[in-house]
Amino acid sequence: MLVHLHDRLEAYFDKMVEIRRYLHQHPELSFQEYKTAKYIADYYKALGIPVRENVGGNGVVAKIVGAKPGKTVALRADFDALPIQDEKDVPYKSTVPGVMHACGHDGHTATLLVLAKVLYEMKDEMAGTVVLIHQHAEEYAPGGAISMIEDGCLEGVDAIFGTHLWATEPTGKIQYRVGPIMAAADRFEITIQGSGGHGAQPHKTKDAIVIASQLVLALQQIVSRRVNPLQPAVVSIGSFVADNAFNVIADTAKLVGTVRTFDEAVRVEIEREIGRITKGVCLAADCSYEYTYTRGYPPVVNHEEETKFIVEIAKQIPEVKIVEETEPHMGGEDFAYYLQHVKGAFFFTGAKAEHITEPFPHHHPKFDFDEKAMLIAAKTLGSAALMYLQK
Amino acid sequence: MLVHLHDRLEAYFDKMVEIRRYLHQHPELSFQEYKTAKYIADYYKALGIPVRENVGGNGVVAKIVGAKPGKTVALRADFDALPIQDEKDVPYKSTVPGVMHACGHDGHTATLLVLAKVLYEMKDEMAGTVVLIHQHAEEYAPGGAISMIEDGCLEGVDAIFGTHLWATEPTGKIQYRVGPIMAAADRFEITIQGSGGHGAQPHKTKDAIVIASQLVLALQQIVSRRVNPLQPAVVSIGSFVADNAFNVIADTAKLVGTVRTFDEAVRVEIEREIGRITKGVCLAADCSYEYTYTRGYPPVVNHEEETKFIVEIAKQIPEVKIVEETEPHMGGEDFAYYLQHVKGAFFFTGAKAEHITEPFPHHHPKFDFDEKAMLIAAKTLGSAALMYLQK
Amino acid sequence: MLVHLHDRLEAYFDKMVEIRRYLHQHPELSFQEYKTAKYIADYYKALGIPVRENVGGNGVVAKIVGAKPGKTVALRADFDALPIQDEKDVPYKSTVPGVMHACGHDGHTATLLVLAKVLYEMKDEMAGTVVLIHQHAEEYAPGGAISMIEDGCLEGVDAIFGTHLWATEPTGKIQYRVGPIMAAADRFEITIQGSGGHGAQPHKTKDAIVIASQLVLALQQIVSRRVNPLQPAVVSIGSFVADNAFNVIADTAKLVGTVRTFDEAVRVEIEREIGRITKGVCLAADCSYEYTYTRGYPPVVNHEEETKFIVEIAKQIPEVKIVEETEPHMGGEDFAYYLQHVKGAFFFTGAKAEHITEPFPHHHPKFDFDEKAMLIAAKTLGSAALMYLQK
Amino acid sequence: MLVHLHDRLEAYFDKMVEIRRYLHQHPELSFQEYKTAKYIADYYKALGIPVRENVGGNGVVAKIVGAKPGKTVALRADFDALPIQDEKDVPYKSTVPGVMHACGHDGHTATLLVLAKVLYEMKDEMAGTVVLIHQHAEEYAPGGAISMIEDGCLEGVDAIFGTHLWATEPTGKIQYRVGPIMAAADRFEITIQGSGGHGAQPHKTKDAIVIASQLVLALQQIVSRRVNPLQPAVVSIGSFVADNAFNVIADTAKLVGTVRTFDEAVRVEIEREIGRITKGVCLAADCSYEYTYTRGYPPVVNHEEETKFIVEIAKQIPEVKIVEETEPHMGGEDFAYYLQHVKGAFFFTGAKAEHITEPFPHHHPKFDFDEKAMLIAAKTLGSAALMYLQK
Repeated sequence: MLVHLHDRLEAYFDKMVEIRRYLHQHPELSFQEYKTAKYIADYYKALGIPVRENVGGNGVVAKIVGAKPGKTVALRADFDALPIQDEKDVPYKSTVPGVMHACGHDGHTATLLVLAKVLYEMKDEMAGTVVLIHQHAEEYAPGGAISMIEDGCLEGVDAIFGTHLWATEPTGKIQYRVGPIMAAADRFEITIQGSGGHGAQPHKTKDAIVIASQLVLALQQIVSRRVNPLQPAVVSIGSFVADNAFNVIADTAKLVGTVRTFDEAVRVEIEREIGRITKGVCLAADCSYEYTYTRGYPPVVNHEEETKFIVEIAKQIPEVKIVEETEPHMGGEDFAYYLQHVKGAFFFTGAKAEHITEPFPHHHPKFDFDEKAMLIAAKTLGSAALMYLQK
Repeated sequence: MLVHLHDRLEAYFDKMVEIRRYLHQHPELSFQEYKTAKYIADYYKALGIPVRENVGGNGVVAKIVGAKPGKTVALRADFDALPIQDEKDVPYKSTVPGVMHACGHDGHTATLLVLAKVLYEMKDEMAGTVVLIHQHAEEYAPGGAISMIEDGCLEGVDAIFGTHLWATEPTGKIQYRVGPIMAAADRFEITIQGSGGHGAQPHKTKDAIVIASQLVLALQQIVSRRVNPLQPAVVSIGSFVADNAFNVIADTAKLVGTVRTFDEAVRVEIEREIGRITKGVCLAADCSYEYTYTRGYPPVVNHEEETKFIVEIAKQIPEVKIVEETEPHMGGEDFAYYLQHVKGAFFFTGAKAEHITEPFPHHHPKFDFDEKAMLIAAKTLGSAALMYLQK
Repeated sequence: MLVHLHDRLEAYFDKMVEIRRYLHQHPELSFQEYKTAKYIADYYKALGIPVRENVGGNGVVAKIVGAKPGKTVALRADFDALPIQDEKDVPYKSTVPGVMHACGHDGHTATLLVLAKVLYEMKDEMAGTVVLIHQHAEEYAPGGAISMIEDGCLEGVDAIFGTHLWATEPTGKIQYRVGPIMAAADRFEITIQGSGGHGAQPHKTKDAIVIASQLVLALQQIVSRRVNPLQPAVVSIGSFVADNAFNVIADTAKLVGTVRTFDEAVRVEIEREIGRITKGVCLAADCSYEYTYTRGYPPVVNHEEETKFIVEIAKQIPEVKIVEETEPHMGGEDFAYYLQHVKGAFFFTGAKAEHITEPFPHHHPKFDFDEKAMLIAAKTLGSAALMYLQK
Repeated sequence: MLVHLHDRLEAYFDKMVEIRRYLHQHPELSFQEYKTAKYIADYYKALGIPVRENVGGNGVVAKIVGAKPGKTVALRADFDALPIQDEKDVPYKSTVPGVMHACGHDGHTATLLVLAKVLYEMKDEMAGTVVLIHQHAEEYAPGGAISMIEDGCLEGVDAIFGTHLWATEPTGKIQYRVGPIMAAADRFEITIQGSGGHGAQPHKTKDAIVIASQLVLALQQIVSRRVNPLQPAVVSIGSFVADNAFNVIADTAKLVGTVRTFDEAVRVEIEREIGRITKGVCLAADCSYEYTYTRGYPPVVNHEEETKFIVEIAKQIPEVKIVEETEPHMGGEDFAYYLQHVKGAFFFTGAKAEHITEPFPHHHPKFDFDEKAMLIAAKTLGSAALMYLQK
């Protein structure tokens, strides 16, 4: 059956590329993917596959029911783009100024659409049900996953699989990891409210720049002293702004930063410690402050059995030359939410063509990926679905 | 003779107020005081007093030669205004949007113009020469004093006197100090050139915010550890800007600050120590930086004999109730340059009316002063000139 | 054969306890274990097992050659004690003031001695050779392993196994880890040479306490900013001494600390970064310093095949209820050196009796362990040896 | 009368030197000056001058009542020595190991004793009363002045004068200052109570060294940011001790330091700010602490009229070549207490012989002074007393 699947996917590879390039030329920002959603829904309708639109927003969910009884497996592809100006020099370059598929979601969508077509054609051999989750808004918190789940996209689903095309790893490589594979990515803001004045009279002020500088240094101790050294964690201040004339003393200083963790307890601890340290530093300076901590996506935590299952599947795909454990990525993904509800695994599909030596990273204005990787992703996801249904 | 002087000044007090209010309504920014300069020159010309225009820029210098031989004394008044929007509710409020006499230079000018008229009327009794220096551009470094001096305004001058109306001290008080009375006010900029990147990957970056924060703290040690505790000194960072998204690590951070000192050796030491500390902190962080230190005005250092002379004079002015030593001011004044060339003294003339309890400070949008103080200033300066000429 | 091994070990369990308690009463410090070494050598001599003494110092190596040809496996036990006063209230408490087997090396030795006796009794059934490495001086760098290896203790050895009784994990648990299981543990010293003076005259000094404090804070950035967050690393300052009268300024301050890492590149980076940061901080303060970094043991890095082999063996020991992967320990062990020369694995054997709820940690004056764990260790090491010889 | 005074003092100069050298050979530590006190009292008794012993401890007070009515003036000399080993190579070197008159109090005492003898001889010409206060324990807080005052040594006194021989200023110079001339010298201790542990496990600890280092840096802001830059102030940490093995994390760290101020409000502010900053830093670190602030002597604040009076007197002493205003000294003196109760002045009498180019500072093991300065001190104090009595 898998040979059949693979053959048909290969046969439709041109179609996959065509869809991907169409989407690449017509990117839409997170939460504004109206046309893309319609494009996806129309595709399913044209094939006669039942499809539900406006799932939790712009989400689209299609369902292929096999002829035999079996489990239910969901496959997920995201379809939003980024506020980046496409600077590539290719025929399929973005036609929308300032908007670009700079993360490969166009590829994810093309992969899933063609895979769905093939699975639909194979439905008489198929046991159980495949749910095709086309998710909007992965790039922008709170993301589309939560609302699609609330709107029922996981109902009856036994397991979910998803992949990210990864343009800095070679085509032919699949990367997996049991447990945390992508980090929780949170945001925090601290505004130090000192008391401004003339630069020549520090004693009449509470110097917000000195206070905030002390805070920045004190926050270094969270990672260096307070978090278990075996637990990866990052606390970064991205922005420090106290913009005044040279001869004044700053009234306020604003810090904005990010926290990355893989473990919920560490995440909670860091949120609390930033608060404690800020409180203490401001008490020492006799000033006030505001501190807000906003959770982004939780870590993507792969289930052991499903991850090992993907590994076994991947080893059987002819084009896959390397299946390796990856270190966790400190970036975030709202695939995390699906894995909080059902078993599953998220993996990386290498998408760097052999001749590319210095690939542009994701979110770069010249980002692109090796389209052959879509075929590998489709074969892996499709094989995983078919095999899982029969378990 | 002094009684005569005082009587005539009192007689012309209305004129003084009229001139001050006219100037107040027509303020001009530093180095752009064309109309004010012409107003002053025309005033002298109308009286028949010899006047030199465009002295070192917009400066105006008049000269009154007494009938008898004697010394030469200079009196100085500045006449530029500030880029501040006048928010007072008075008939003589500024008519120029965004420009305001918020430091009392209008009063200085009115004082000197009327005093000149009286001295001119008294020239037959007068020994020696009085030079009236109307200086442009006191508010903005490098100031007008240097170029006026280079253009000869101090030629033949034996001593110089000047005062600043001071709106937060009561009318009737004169404040003096032998030695440093106003500080050197310098400016420095430091740009930390780190290496930016993704907030989740600090190890691939050189975090400019952390480096600059460490620098801000390290700079505190200049005053706390390196400068003689008996020498007043201030190092303030007014501006800290590294303005980025929350999830990046800052590539650069820019600090801008001021240094205030009274002693040349301390000034030199602080400039050097900021450089040394910046170099060390950046070496520790393996990053580069730019550091520039720009000297503003030097400290105003009063000469002992001339200051004591002013004290004696002031005690004889009937309206002066208090003559007291002031603590040095950490602010700057380019009167400093005159005192590097000739003997002299700079003092403060209280200008807060009795009914004002919380006066607006200098440079405030609602700044104003008690016009009666102009009369006290004129009497003190005029008496000082006449008495000095006879020494 | 394994059943036979296990039966005989059980039969000799009393002997094992007796040896352990004798050693516990007669502890000797690292590099001073003369009597313990003689005790071990005498034991082998009494049994007729060939033994080599003074191997690389106080080390003792015995060899049991099986009747059949086969591989050569080494088993290692360390036998030094610690400079700690035994505060336990048990009959077998240390009789040497201030010296104590507070880490379980007495148990390691008793385990290996009795296991050797059994293997010797089974030598006719045995294929290949078992080398019994009794190592001195594990507790004190540079440790005994290096010199024993240089003195030939690993000659002809195909693989080595070792275990540590672990008093905070329950008896019946075996903990393993492929790759790094214990950290590199290095030591560094930094002496800040400032310039002392009177506490009232900071400007005539270079305040070593302020400089060293700044350094302590700056070193926090190594872990928080410069090391890959996925790489565990610790930089701790254990000692900060600048001991003077209250009214002086410190001439020198001495910092002593430790660095823990698992990765050689990270280890090298941290050594370099401490140096760079110290250099920069001292340049900023215009003072001098001394910095020495002394490498302790490298990380213990288990070989994959041998570790999985131990896991399989352990699962077959009846008393072993749990075989689990452990997180790496940040502590050090000079077993690391053996694994740099031959294949092998180091694992932890739980040694907390069921009724103990709050066990005293290793190196505590009241440290003790469940002696039954010795039997489990002996069975696991013995089974591993016998099975490996036949591979 | 003054000529008479001066002549007799000159006549007795050898006696002065003899007394000084005897005292120099027999120094006694603060609060243990039993023999010195007896020596002084016996001296007065031998002369027939009424003397009170054990005044507020080892203090001795003599009184010379003039024949005519007049004011009462007190002159004070301190007589304790220091715990320093005398390293001079002179015949009159200390005979007591580890104890030395390294601050010139022997000279103060010899000066006053001989002056008393002369005044007593002149008592028939004298108006009023001279009180001779020989104070114990100036070197060690709380000092002897408080208890002597409580024990009545200032009863009936109208004014007090005192001097310090100053070995780093040339003989022939008198230094005065109206207002604060010597600083308040306080002591503080802060113990950071963290939570210790293994150097490899920072997350299970509260690292007292990191916390205390942060505190040391934060305390720099008191002088750099919180105290008026025109107010001299020093906060120095003399001692930082957290003495542990390299591989632990410190449980506690102890800081001990000094604060120097001239102004009571600044003194109060600094005590409060150290407390606030310590509280804040410890809150940030979630640890506890102890903070004690112990006031030493208050600043020595000279009264204006009495200081000017001393200046006039000094100018009339033939050997006095220079009378100059001194900058305040950051050191302390319990003469401060007398000036809180009665009018008076404290001044410095230069005591560096012309041939000495690099004098050893006070408290140095090789400290010595020019004995001729004692004659100058005696003439100045004696003249001041006689003239003041007649005012």
